[in-house]
Amino acid sequence: MQAREDVRVERGLLEDFCVRVLTALNVPEEDASITADVLVTADLRGISSHGVARLRRYVNGIRDGMMIPVPEEEVVRETDTTALFDAGGGLGQPVSHRAMTTAIAKAAEFGSGFVTVRNSNHYGIAGYYAMLALEEDFIGISMTNASELVVPTFGRDAMLGTNPISVAAPAGSQYPFVLDMATSTVPRGKLEVYQRQEKDLPRGWATDEKGEITDDTSRVLSNLQQRAGGGLLPLGGVGELLGGHKGYGLALLVDILCGVLPGAAYANRTYPKDEEGNPLPSEIGHFFGAIRVDAFRPLRDFQGDMDDLQARLKETAKAEGQDRIYIHGEKEFEQAERNQALGVPVNPKVVQDLQAIAQEVGVRYDLG
Amino acid sequence: MQAREDVRVERGLLEDFCVRVLTALNVPEEDASITADVLVTADLRGISSHGVARLRRYVNGIRDGMMIPVPEEEVVRETDTTALFDAGGGLGQPVSHRAMTTAIAKAAEFGSGFVTVRNSNHYGIAGYYAMLALEEDFIGISMTNASELVVPTFGRDAMLGTNPISVAAPAGSQYPFVLDMATSTVPRGKLEVYQRQEKDLPRGWATDEKGEITDDTSRVLSNLQQRAGGGLLPLGGVGELLGGHKGYGLALLVDILCGVLPGAAYANRTYPKDEEGNPLPSEIGHFFGAIRVDAFRPLRDFQGDMDDLQARLKETAKAEGQDRIYIHGEKEFEQAERNQALGVPVNPKVVQDLQAIAQEVGVRYDLG
Repeated sequence: MQAREDVRVERGLLEDFCVRVLTALNVPEEDASITADVLVTADLRGISSHGVARLRRYVNGIRDGMMIPVPEEEVVRETDTTALFDAGGGLGQPVSHRAMTTAIAKAAEFGSGFVTVRNSNHYGIAGYYAMLALEEDFIGISMTNASELVVPTFGRDAMLGTNPISVAAPAGSQYPFVLDMATSTVPRGKLEVYQRQEKDLPRGWATDEKGEITDDTSRVLSNLQQRAGGGLLPLGGVGELLGGHKGYGLALLVDILCGVLPGAAYANRTYPKDEEGNPLPSEIGHFFGAIRVDAFRPLRDFQGDMDDLQARLKETAKAEGQDRIYIHGEKEFEQAERNQALGVPVNPKVVQDLQAIAQEVGVRYDLG
Repeated sequence: MQAREDVRVERGLLEDFCVRVLTALNVPEEDASITADVLVTADLRGISSHGVARLRRYVNGIRDGMMIPVPEEEVVRETDTTALFDAGGGLGQPVSHRAMTTAIAKAAEFGSGFVTVRNSNHYGIAGYYAMLALEEDFIGISMTNASELVVPTFGRDAMLGTNPISVAAPAGSQYPFVLDMATSTVPRGKLEVYQRQEKDLPRGWATDEKGEITDDTSRVLSNLQQRAGGGLLPLGGVGELLGGHKGYGLALLVDILCGVLPGAAYANRTYPKDEEGNPLPSEIGHFFGAIRVDAFRPLRDFQGDMDDLQARLKETAKAEGQDRIYIHGEKEFEQAERNQALGVPVNPKVVQDLQAIAQEVGVRYDLG
């Protein structure tokens, strides 16, 4: 069966639509704009799993009382270079934007700045916040913990999130470096794609309910759904032979910085449930950082070396059968340029869902 | 052939010996003590590849003029929370100790502190410096770049170092979390062990001169030696299927923070050679950071959650055939306790080398 083609939507229209939906659910205009920008930026960069397809999650979250549209956000603690925000159970995006902006302001004044957030929700693509630092030519850092999908090395059950790490660093004439990676081998969305395509999993992505490596896509997804054991493998795969304990260590590091440090939830506590198994509001946390490049050396020198480093890597000999070496973020910047010109691609099924959302919350649908 | 057993040496004796050797080579007493402590700490923690076995490298480095025993170390730039040190071509350990101590002092005053180092040399185990922050109950960060051994994703030639990342975080009644990982699947030393044991490489550790995955241990090591192509694979292995681009991204991140940010060398420039192929002094760099835990929440609360997080992971169900889940650093802390009691294990071949060094530099050998 041929999949129907993506619909192309002008970026501004798509953002305006998201804002209309969110404000109709009582989200303040500014918070709605930030959230819309994070979602559409993901689609623009080709990360459609974290784009407007997620609007449904926030709409339902707000309507079910899992996310508070007008939260009592609070700065709990603050020093020259650090702060702890309490998101008050609101959307993850607005508080994260304010937290990262605060980290950047602290870096501008003192050289470095770090802000953690507790009592928050899903914040979209990690890279969005790290990239905010690029506007000041700073190095930006963004991490979040998440619901448990990943098994620790030698463990059977999912205990950690896919806990992404993003770091952005400016360059000169080249694209900035933007690392934005789940600390698992792949995110769950990748398994869902394989399920739709009825493909077996590559060995190294996931384990079954015994904690053994498996290629059974549907089984892994159903086990995760039912908490029946097994889950995604950390980067490096099963056991220690190929470094799975390193991916596990990175996931744990993110859980410490995003969960333990701000006093948020961690491990299998991130998405708590009541006694009857009904979901309670998320208690996840985030970690943001900014470091001034020009505190260490003149920006221009840094940018020149970033360009040279990229050139060295891209111009080096290719492995047999390969013709290109990428720098992290490069594919996404190229996608964004294409999509900016052609319109943001939206999957037909997502279009249907956006139409349904428009009707449910009573706003105009104008995306074609 | 049965390998001869390790010799057990009392920690203080081993350190004193290293100090005698280094001071005989004109290294100042304090710098010699720091270097000795870094080396012996590695052996104590069971990381013998980075222990006193490396003394030979420093002895030769100093005698060949590749490392300066009394360098003109300099603080090039400084802000409230940042500093750039120039190591003056000296040993990596003393300047790194001072850099990390400076980062910790800045964190104590302002909440966070970051110090980069350029013009330096091999600094030993990354974890040593990150762990210095634990003395103040801060979070510690340590990274270094290194000579090129790792191929970028889709590349044929080694262009990046094994570029380790270490992060340490305090706990309460449990051991601290100490992640200390090369960003490659394995370090070169692991291949050397396989070569001695005449074992094939697991597929996922290295590529051959065409850039294709290989199990030929000797070929990879000889290719690396001769710069004939191929090398170690980044964490996640070859290509993108199992996340090799993520390990490559982490290695590149370390190269940016340790090479580009301080204005040190990076990529395949870290260990330059003259026109005749003779080695010139290393130009590698390091990155150190410290963050105050109690800037975000009371230390005791943080420690309590660290203990709980560890307990949750360790007590969760094990995969079939496994009986224990580890926290990062735990194995090394247990080794250190054992070795503190029994004496630091030193390989008989290393003992021979230490005896030779004693004779060469004219100091007393008293390690049995």
